[in-house]
Amino acid sequence: DVFPITRALLSVSDKSSLIPLAEFLHSKKVHLLSTGGTAKAIRDAGIPVTDVSEYTGSAECLDGRVKTLHPKIHGGLLGVRGNEKHEADMKEHDIGKIDMTILNLYPFESTVNSGAGFEQCIENIDIGGPSMLRSTAKNHAFTTIVTSPDQYQEVMECMEKNGGGTTLELRRRFAARAFALSAKYDGMIANWFGEQLAKDGGEKGTSVVTRVYEPAFQLKYGCNPHQKPAAILSSLNKKLPFQILNGTPGYINLLDAANAYLLVKELRQATNLAAASSFKHVSPAGAAVAVPLTDIECAAYEITPEAASKLTPSALAYLRARNADPMCSFGDYAAVSDVVDEDTALILKKEVSDGIVAPGYTPAALEILKAKKGGKFIILEANPDFVPDDVEYREVYGMTFAQKRNDVIITTEHMTKNVVTKGGVSSLTDAAIRDMIVASICVKYTQSNSVGFAKDGMMVGVGAGQQSRVDCVKLAGRKVKTWYLRQHPKVLGLKFKEGVKRQDRVNARVRYIEGDFTPEERTRWEAQFEVVPDALSEEEKDEFMKQATGVTISSDAFFPFRDSIDHASKVGVCYVVQPGGSVQDEQVTACCDDYGMVMSFTDLLHPSL
Amino acid sequence: DVFPITRALLSVSDKSSLIPLAEFLHSKKVHLLSTGGTAKAIRDAGIPVTDVSEYTGSAECLDGRVKTLHPKIHGGLLGVRGNEKHEADMKEHDIGKIDMTILNLYPFESTVNSGAGFEQCIENIDIGGPSMLRSTAKNHAFTTIVTSPDQYQEVMECMEKNGGGTTLELRRRFAARAFALSAKYDGMIANWFGEQLAKDGGEKGTSVVTRVYEPAFQLKYGCNPHQKPAAILSSLNKKLPFQILNGTPGYINLLDAANAYLLVKELRQATNLAAASSFKHVSPAGAAVAVPLTDIECAAYEITPEAASKLTPSALAYLRARNADPMCSFGDYAAVSDVVDEDTALILKKEVSDGIVAPGYTPAALEILKAKKGGKFIILEANPDFVPDDVEYREVYGMTFAQKRNDVIITTEHMTKNVVTKGGVSSLTDAAIRDMIVASICVKYTQSNSVGFAKDGMMVGVGAGQQSRVDCVKLAGRKVKTWYLRQHPKVLGLKFKEGVKRQDRVNARVRYIEGDFTPEERTRWEAQFEVVPDALSEEEKDEFMKQATGVTISSDAFFPFRDSIDHASKVGVCYVVQPGGSVQDEQVTACCDDYGMVMSFTDLLHPSL
Repeated sequence: DVFPITRALLSVSDKSSLIPLAEFLHSKKVHLLSTGGTAKAIRDAGIPVTDVSEYTGSAECLDGRVKTLHPKIHGGLLGVRGNEKHEADMKEHDIGKIDMTILNLYPFESTVNSGAGFEQCIENIDIGGPSMLRSTAKNHAFTTIVTSPDQYQEVMECMEKNGGGTTLELRRRFAARAFALSAKYDGMIANWFGEQLAKDGGEKGTSVVTRVYEPAFQLKYGCNPHQKPAAILSSLNKKLPFQILNGTPGYINLLDAANAYLLVKELRQATNLAAASSFKHVSPAGAAVAVPLTDIECAAYEITPEAASKLTPSALAYLRARNADPMCSFGDYAAVSDVVDEDTALILKKEVSDGIVAPGYTPAALEILKAKKGGKFIILEANPDFVPDDVEYREVYGMTFAQKRNDVIITTEHMTKNVVTKGGVSSLTDAAIRDMIVASICVKYTQSNSVGFAKDGMMVGVGAGQQSRVDCVKLAGRKVKTWYLRQHPKVLGLKFKEGVKRQDRVNARVRYIEGDFTPEERTRWEAQFEVVPDALSEEEKDEFMKQATGVTISSDAFFPFRDSIDHASKVGVCYVVQPGGSVQDEQVTACCDDYGMVMSFTDLLHPSL
Repeated sequence: DVFPITRALLSVSDKSSLIPLAEFLHSKKVHLLSTGGTAKAIRDAGIPVTDVSEYTGSAECLDGRVKTLHPKIHGGLLGVRGNEKHEADMKEHDIGKIDMTILNLYPFESTVNSGAGFEQCIENIDIGGPSMLRSTAKNHAFTTIVTSPDQYQEVMECMEKNGGGTTLELRRRFAARAFALSAKYDGMIANWFGEQLAKDGGEKGTSVVTRVYEPAFQLKYGCNPHQKPAAILSSLNKKLPFQILNGTPGYINLLDAANAYLLVKELRQATNLAAASSFKHVSPAGAAVAVPLTDIECAAYEITPEAASKLTPSALAYLRARNADPMCSFGDYAAVSDVVDEDTALILKKEVSDGIVAPGYTPAALEILKAKKGGKFIILEANPDFVPDDVEYREVYGMTFAQKRNDVIITTEHMTKNVVTKGGVSSLTDAAIRDMIVASICVKYTQSNSVGFAKDGMMVGVGAGQQSRVDCVKLAGRKVKTWYLRQHPKVLGLKFKEGVKRQDRVNARVRYIEGDFTPEERTRWEAQFEVVPDALSEEEKDEFMKQATGVTISSDAFFPFRDSIDHASKVGVCYVVQPGGSVQDEQVTACCDDYGMVMSFTDLLHPSL
């Protein structure tokens, strides 16, 4: 497996560590071949080196474009050692063996990134380098391909240990890396070429798109356990947006994390308040910005007003996000827009949750979170400056769907530019605008069709994935009603037995409000209380809901009919945000006016699929 | 911009259309250079051709490994035309211009796929081909690189129009494609190499993944109108799974079509019955196989028993699919497993629908469908033999998610292998197994969390995208109840005014059943009837639902508690399908036994996200 190195070809643009390597090779009696600047550097260091053109006997011409594209070079690299015919051919044609190639490719990418013009980029496409790289890598059973200074040390150690030769194991590994480098290199060229064609308005239909990814880490499986293999990859030469600080995220965790983080990042940007979200199955169960709690809310969320008043903004935001629909948030994926502090970590500590993503963690917070789930709590650190590629590609059943990222930023402007109801823009308070933004950004990240209800900077009802708009309003509206009724005196007054767990108390309150027990469930439910509570009657609920007010609804597509507004009116809606564009817009607007609601048209659709 | 072609180099493994091209080039007085089998084929066709080794004066050696790696070849490709120094160099070194290269690369991928061993795969790494390809593509300002027979026609037309030369526009486009091909080729090698190293227990992390796409068509926009540009692409050298016969599909239409078609294809395979689905927002509103209708169903779906008895299987399947939730199916995307016939087209003609996908259409059906929506109805023809790549890639916020396609096929075996309730597998009827399969395949294509209810081969309630399992059961359960109550005598007896449209009748019945009118809505609703109907009371509904029986529920993940079963029991569920795996499996099974239900564990999770 070990073949001695008798002759090596060096051609590098990155000259770091070149001389020690050349010295070493010379000391091992390796005949050095080189070209241009590399040859000069070696010669200047006093190490003997032969110019490739001298070696091939073919004068350098065409500005050096064909220096190494010669049978004496490629024959020397590609000849099968020990093959009688090859050995005879090499002898006959005076082709000496070249056992090692050390090269870098011309820096095409940095040329492009420097803003160079078309011609100059083309000039920086390396031809000779990839050819030598590929010949050497193909023939790695005998030859060694070295493509980066970070491999020099290993090569020298290997040769030192193996009598001046390299092992097959090393040659195979280096060959694999060489082909990967070559693929990357031509991938970059192909991508750049595609962009150039597009710029020139050339026919798209004839160009190709090359996406080159580097595997970041393997996943145990994909969306389902039988979907193996599965992995996360990054775009070539780009980092991932998140760094894993703890735990082993799965496919769905990472989808949740991406959407959850984008949601809070945009909320932060739009409202200038700390924001948090609580995701389940790639839709938010809740989301909120840091707005102080009322005393009744404190009671409903099981925190004392005093403790609540001392919470940091991040903690307050997550507490609200988690309390939009705390039954659904069980086992959520959390996202926080700001550095996670101890307060926030202590709130999360009490909740059943799968993981978190945030731009940073205080040491105390990190310690608390790392201890969750027996050490398996997933902690991702987001790079807040990460900018993904502009166009996203997605393969579905042999079709690749390409689209510009949904990078629209929802702002106050969208809420105020076209208030279609009677009072116009002056009927919007700052708090209303904030809630309109919160609800709209939230539905942007909710599986379509979706509507979301917000109040006091938090989501109080998110309806995801419905096929009819009005069904979606009813679904989310029921959640708003449940959220409100968690503040009903009879709910706040429930007397739980000692030892009933937090999540069980949360669920028991929700089921008390919903009231649709099956017999078995009722027995189990009743067993949790010191005093079995009276039912909460429909009349009591309706009576309590009369105080509901100040709620905002946002929809990811227009309301086709007034029925959605009619239903929304039952849960305290005062503000309506929608793109507009239905043939029935006038009737829908009139309906809002009937109820004294304020409605804004944003022109922004945002289904998420 | 136009340069005449004086000399061309041909080296192809795919010899289709080679001879007509060679003849054409010869007729244009192009000097042909070639190697090996390509030269022989051309010579055998009586066309003059020079062997590369004769041309370079360098004898073929090393089994042909270095034939074209010669300054006379690469100098001829890379020389800058019109550059004084280059022209002089070429003259001095007797380097003739080579203006066009026509080549394919050695079939590395098919060698790997054929199960060849390591050595043979390595042998099939092309060295000379990529070098010529890259030299020609780099110098595309002057030279033309042709890499696929599907480009021959265009090259010939271009030369014909341009006095024997090619245009810069064509050369650039072809060069871009050439670099993409090269990137893909080395990407495949790098991937394969990585796998080999991994097999040997070597380090991963050295490999890259290269995906190369060809744009198929532009989209007006992506998921949202502001997401531009957007396009559909195919994998390089692969066709799309669908051909567009009519209309202009959008991003969401195509996502719907992919999922809708896969659903019916799998239903067809699993049940051997014609199948149809009705999609909205990437989830099925309904899906069914061809099972005859009862007379009461006929009344509920507005078809006479006589007409129904004559329906073709495809028509019957779509009629059922559309009637699972006809209010949601408004504006659906339809899929049919079999060739669409006139019967099916006539049913679709009456419905508001966006498009259809099927493996074929009779001429009569196509004519009817093409006339829908003022000619804009989208008609896609699916290639039933299409096989997509094994692993799908999806970019989300700078992360690329890779996973094996969800290609698990749900069969009878999954339903029968682990019946956990008392009666065991003998308590399953054929009809029950069929419905279990229908419901399970349907939830496989429903946005998670999802459960689906089926009866008589059709979905009667699909719950999509909920964050809590029991909420999902309740949501879909309400749909089952609505479906049943559409057969209530009071609903069937509703007296609509003349002129009330079909979809309005459908909606009016559903709203009658739901009963939660707002005052304005009630007025509008009542205006549709000859005789204003009595309310359908809760008691009447409950009474009618007592006859509900024989319903199947399938869930895309396990039921964590018995509550879901308790709720399912209210809508006639007799059969339960779920993966199993909850810590409460025993309690859930006991619950099924209490109700006399039959439950199967499939081990198959199938969330869809």
